[in-house]
This record gives sequence, structure tokens and C-alpha cells, in this order.
Amino acid sequence: MVRINENYQKLQGSYLFSTIAKKVNEYAAANPSAKIIRLGIGDVTRALTPSVISTLHSSVDEMADEKTFRGYAPDLGYDFLRHAICENDYKARGCAIEEDEIFVSDGAKPDSGNIQEIFDVNNNIAVCDPVYPVYVDSNVMCGRAGEYDKTTGRYSNVIYMDCTAANGFKPELPSEVPDIIYLCFPNNPTGAVVTKSELQEWVDYANKNGSVIIYDAAYEAYISDDAIPHSIYECSGAKECAIELHSFSKNAGFTGLRLGYAVVPKELVRGGVALNSLWARRHATKYNGAPYIVQRAGEAVYSEQGKKEIQGLIDYYMENAKYIVNGLKKAGYTVFGGDNSPYIWLATPDNMTSWEFFDHLLETANVVGTPGVGFGSCGEGYFRLTAFGSHENTREAVDRICR
Amino acid sequence: MVRINENYQKLQGSYLFSTIAKKVNEYAAANPSAKIIRLGIGDVTRALTPSVISTLHSSVDEMADEKTFRGYAPDLGYDFLRHAICENDYKARGCAIEEDEIFVSDGAKPDSGNIQEIFDVNNNIAVCDPVYPVYVDSNVMCGRAGEYDKTTGRYSNVIYMDCTAANGFKPELPSEVPDIIYLCFPNNPTGAVVTKSELQEWVDYANKNGSVIIYDAAYEAYISDDAIPHSIYECSGAKECAIELHSFSKNAGFTGLRLGYAVVPKELVRGGVALNSLWARRHATKYNGAPYIVQRAGEAVYSEQGKKEIQGLIDYYMENAKYIVNGLKKAGYTVFGGDNSPYIWLATPDNMTSWEFFDHLLETANVVGTPGVGFGSCGEGYFRLTAFGSHENTREAVDRICR
Repeated sequence: MVRINENYQKLQGSYLFSTIAKKVNEYAAANPSAKIIRLGIGDVTRALTPSVISTLHSSVDEMADEKTFRGYAPDLGYDFLRHAICENDYKARGCAIEEDEIFVSDGAKPDSGNIQEIFDVNNNIAVCDPVYPVYVDSNVMCGRAGEYDKTTGRYSNVIYMDCTAANGFKPELPSEVPDIIYLCFPNNPTGAVVTKSELQEWVDYANKNGSVIIYDAAYEAYISDDAIPHSIYECSGAKECAIELHSFSKNAGFTGLRLGYAVVPKELVRGGVALNSLWARRHATKYNGAPYIVQRAGEAVYSEQGKKEIQGLIDYYMENAKYIVNGLKKAGYTVFGGDNSPYIWLATPDNMTSWEFFDHLLETANVVGTPGVGFGSCGEGYFRLTAFGSHENTREAVDRICR
Repeated sequence: MVRINENYQKLQGSYLFSTIAKKVNEYAAANPSAKIIRLGIGDVTRALTPSVISTLHSSVDEMADEKTFRGYAPDLGYDFLRHAICENDYKARGCAIEEDEIFVSDGAKPDSGNIQEIFDVNNNIAVCDPVYPVYVDSNVMCGRAGEYDKTTGRYSNVIYMDCTAANGFKPELPSEVPDIIYLCFPNNPTGAVVTKSELQEWVDYANKNGSVIIYDAAYEAYISDDAIPHSIYECSGAKECAIELHSFSKNAGFTGLRLGYAVVPKELVRGGVALNSLWARRHATKYNGAPYIVQRAGEAVYSEQGKKEIQGLIDYYMENAKYIVNGLKKAGYTVFGGDNSPYIWLATPDNMTSWEFFDHLLETANVVGTPGVGFGSCGEGYFRLTAFGSHENTREAVDRICR
């Protein structure tokens, strides 16, 4: 008799964004005339840029001809894309990353969920609280997170690093040393950022203790301040302790196209084994490559014209961020983030809980955001808005909230 | 100090097709003038069909306009594609599968590697020998397969179902009852098929014992014989015991586009939990949907014109299969498969081992096939050729082998 993976029973509720989608769909069905504005899930709204579109068309045409047709992609990504990533995201920033340390994938979300598979199930993990749910949930599903405590809302084998207004939403080095440390800067959901010297402390801490840092850099394109690192490999010693995850979703708008990559340096060795070889094996066995046409579209993002277009998207969304931050501050809200980050993190007014404020905003302003508590208990009393809407919708949403 | 997942150390060699690619690349580099014909990995060679290409172009255009742009896909697939799959692959065949039992993915390979995650790590599995390597390797990587025995070439917690010429390469019901049973018909690598009544025996066996069948139907499009089921759900009771995996790679040539789906019926319940809900949760947490443009291309496969075009591809490849089977038989080879299947399974001549014959063919005929032993110890002395080449290459390969 087969037994199910009982770890799934320890998951709390359904995946956060599925729950939100369900609530919003129900409200929309009951209120068909409501003009709902979604600033909840971090999904982009701008069209793909001209360079990406024309590359998609030309690579589709290649697939229409036997002579240029492409079947299975190389397991770890096409050389042309790994080369473009290496040159632009690393060498141009002085990071000594090699092409064979770059693993092309269908996005930072799958990578952040799958990466834990190469570690022993008895390692413990450290995460920020609040945190992007996939880090914890993927560890719950394989049994690494331990047991759930209803009183605290926390798992027994997870070290929670409280991120609060008091510490500027920047985690402190944990006193109990974790085996695996998830960090995300610019942070989702709080929008917090760290300087290079602050990040260097984490790298030194990990190297001292033999920990591995999973560094989620999905939002690095929103950094405009020179003191803030785009990559953890700008810190010395990071190749010995860090894996970095990247997305094409938030810079180039690939949420519906699916492309990302992980960097696993060859110097990252534990128990005599290179993690690079483990991830290569995982990729080769349980994944089958990103579509050729999407990898070509990713390459186009790094062309001179592509880079300009992407900067246009970033500027567009950051104008929204500024509008949200300024508008909410003027209306008396306490607001964080929105600077070097597309996320705005606000304290709910009138001692409302996060979900009370979610319902309140949905019902009174028809605006959808994300309840802070959905990201962890320290998120209670907070709320996340994203800058990924249109100018029009963003302005209207802010104006509605302020009324 | 972080520890790696030691189960990876139990994997034997690298992933089979990566090893073959490496050998072929080395030979090609050393013999630049050799015209190598690849009939090894099951990758298609024909271009995508006109319906698919025009749909890709039109959906790319949708992504170029804010008004029709699509961001994140629904976790489990777009309704339009789930609907088309449900109508064409199930309802048209009299199978009572519902749309919310269909989970769209980036292919049958990732699904077949990931599906084991929803089961307890202490379940045992049964696989055919020879077998598609992903089934076993994905179970090794999570620790379910147990320890590797160098003498037998087998894992301690895997029940191997020998498929030999004596049983027509059809596995027998195992006497030790497995928790999870992997079946693939038309079979990869042997090309064997089962009738509906033979498959019904497996369904009855699984229902009697509480086992779950993972049914890999990636090659069902190659079935032309009415006695052979396209889906396990043609058997009565299959919704209570079987998960089915499908690919768009081998019918529509999507190996480089990436699209597949899994069917997890709601009636499939173990320990009081519906496996449908577990797979939904796994999908929502560790996956982020197939690209919109690719899902539209998948929908186009089910249009009237799309179906005709796909049949054209199947006919094309099956002409190759016939040529290979007839040519090799005429040359005195003992040949199996190639009928209702794109795979040809041949006994190596002169008592050569599978890898000896691989090297022999590569060096003397510049033809690449897959060593049978790469699929399991019962594959020793056999060799797999695929029908996925061009007519020209296939004929030349057969002519070279026969010389």
C-alpha cells in the first residue's frame, strides 16, 4: 500500500498567492461591476520589449525549418545565453564567474524551490521573517523544516530571523548557526536592501561556519544606488559559500515566458563534493532545459538595444514605486521599501491585522495587495504593494487608498 | 556545517544521455570529417508544423501589447489548454477525466522525475528492466531507491521487472508487491506494447494491493492498432490507482519547446488524502507554469488542421521505423519494436556488449544509437535506435549498418 508524503500535511493553508487569487475571484464574481486593481502578486503588466518580441519571432521561424530547427536544449542552457549572462551580469561587475557555473532554468521560483534537493534533509535552514513562502514550503515538503508549532506559527527546524522596523528589516547574524541561509536583497516582501559591507558580513559568517547562502537576486535590476551590490559575488569569498538565483521576470517582464538562472560556483565544495556537480546532475535528471526560443529572448535582453528597453521598464515601475511611497506617506501611512526595490511595505493603519486590511482594501478601494502575515508572523500588521501596475492603475489605487 | 544530499553519491555514472553526448562530441572532435548520424537520444528532427508556428507568432504578438500581455500563467495550466486536452485525449476516447485532473507542465521528463515527491520516501518502487533512467535516478536522489549493489547493478529498494525476449519485453506482475509501479507503453526503450486487457491486469493488481501506477504515455501517438490503449484510463478502475504522464515532444515535436501534462484523478486517494491536491500543491510551490505562448501552441495541436499535421509527423517517423526494422531484419539482425512505437530494439550481433556495439557503430558506421545496458542490466546485449531522424539520414544509417 502506497503512503503519501506526510510532510505535505504540515504545510499551512494553501500557497499564499493561490489563496489571494481565490479570494479576489470570489469578490469579483460577487461584485461584477467593481474595477479591481491588482497590486498584490508581483506580476508585471508592461508588454515584452521590441528586442525580445522580434527575437521571439525570428527564433520561432528557425523552428519552422528543418535546417534550423532545435530539439532538446543542452541540459544546462545554451552556450550563447550562458555567455551573455556571464559577460553582462558578472564579468562587467568584476565577478569571476565562469560560464559553466551558470545553470539556465525556467525561473527563480522553481530554482528556489528545487535547490534544497541537493542538501541533506537533516540540515536546518534560516530564513527571514517575513519571507517569500517558497523557501520554507519547499523545505517543509521534503521534511527538512520539521514540525509546525501552532502557537508560534513556526517550524521546529527553521531558524527565523526577525525583520522588523527596529532593525530596518535587515536580519541579524543568527546565534544558532544554520546550515543553509536564505537571503533575498532587494528583499521580497519588505523592499529592504543591504550594502556591500553588510552583505560581506554574511559571506564571512557563512565561510566561518561552513553554511551555504542561497542568495535570491531576483530584484537586483531595481538597484540604482552604487553602495548596494547587484550580486553576492561582489563580496570576497562568496564563491566558497553562496549560490545565487536570478530571474528574467522582474527586469525583462518574463513572468509569462519563464526564464531564470542559478549560479553554483565550482569553489563551493562541501564534504569533498562540488555543489556545481550536484546541481548539474539534478538539472540533467529532473529538468529538460528552457525552450530555445525563450533562451534566445533572454539573450536579446543583453543586447545594447535590449538593455535600454529593460531600463525603460525599470524606470517605469520605479516611477510607480515613488508615487505609492509619496502618496501613502502624505496620507499618514508608515511606509518602507520602494527605493532600489519594486516592493512597498506599509504598516496597516488602526491596528488592523494584515488580512483585515486586505479585506478592507479589497472591499472599500477594490485594491488587491498582499497581507504581510502571509510572509511570516513578523509580517503581521504589515501589507505589501507592488510597483508592477500601470501608471494609471497605480495612481488610481493610491488615490483610492488615500480617500 | 552544511551536508550534501549523500543519495546523489549513489547514482551510477552520469545521466545516460549526457554520457553519450560526451562520447559523440569527443569522436566528432577527433574525426571532423565524419558525417555522424544520430539515432540515439529520442529527439525529433522535423520542424514544428505550420499551425504551431502560426500560433506561436500570434501569441508572441499578444505579448507585445499591454492589452493582451500575459504574465504568470495559472499554476496548473491555462483553461483553454486543459479543456483541449480533456476533450481530445480523454472524452473522445470515452475516458471520464475532468479538466481539473489535468496539470500542464514543461514536459513528461520533469513530471516523471518530480512525481515521486508526493509519496513517502520509504515506499518501494517497481520498474521494468530495461527502463528509462529518470524513473530510477529520481528515486535514488531522494533516497527511496536504497543502496546500490555493484554485483547486481541494482538498488536495494527497487523491484526490477525483467523484460526479455522470453516474455516479449512485457513485465510480469511482481510477486513482491510494490508501492509505486512505473509503466511505459509504447515502451521506451524496447518499443513493446500491451493490449487493453493486459493493461487491465495491472490496474486490477494495483487496486487489489493499494499500489499506484505511474503510467508514462509519452509515445501513445504512435499507436495505430485498435487493441492497444492510448490511455490507462481506458481500463476500468484506473482512476483509483493511476497517474498518467503525457508529452507534446514526440507527437508534435516540442522537444525544444517543452510542454507536457500529468493526469492525477481525484478518485486517487491514499491515507485519506487525494493525490490530486498533493500534486496541485507541489506544482503551485515548486513550479510556475508553462509559458503562455507554448500553451497556445499546445492548443493548436488539437485543432483540426493541427491534428492532420501531427499525423503527418507520426507517419513520417513511422516510415523510418519500418525502414529500420526491415533493413536490419534483412541484414540478419534480431529486431523488436518499431511497430506502434518509434523505438527499435535490436540484439547486438556477435555477442558484443551494448557499449562495444555503440563504439563499433560510432566508429565504423558513424551512427549513434543508445546502448541497451544504459537502461538496465536486462538491456545488456541490446541496442536502441530511434525513428526520429530524417528519411535521408535514417536510410543512410541503415545502409551503413548493413554494410
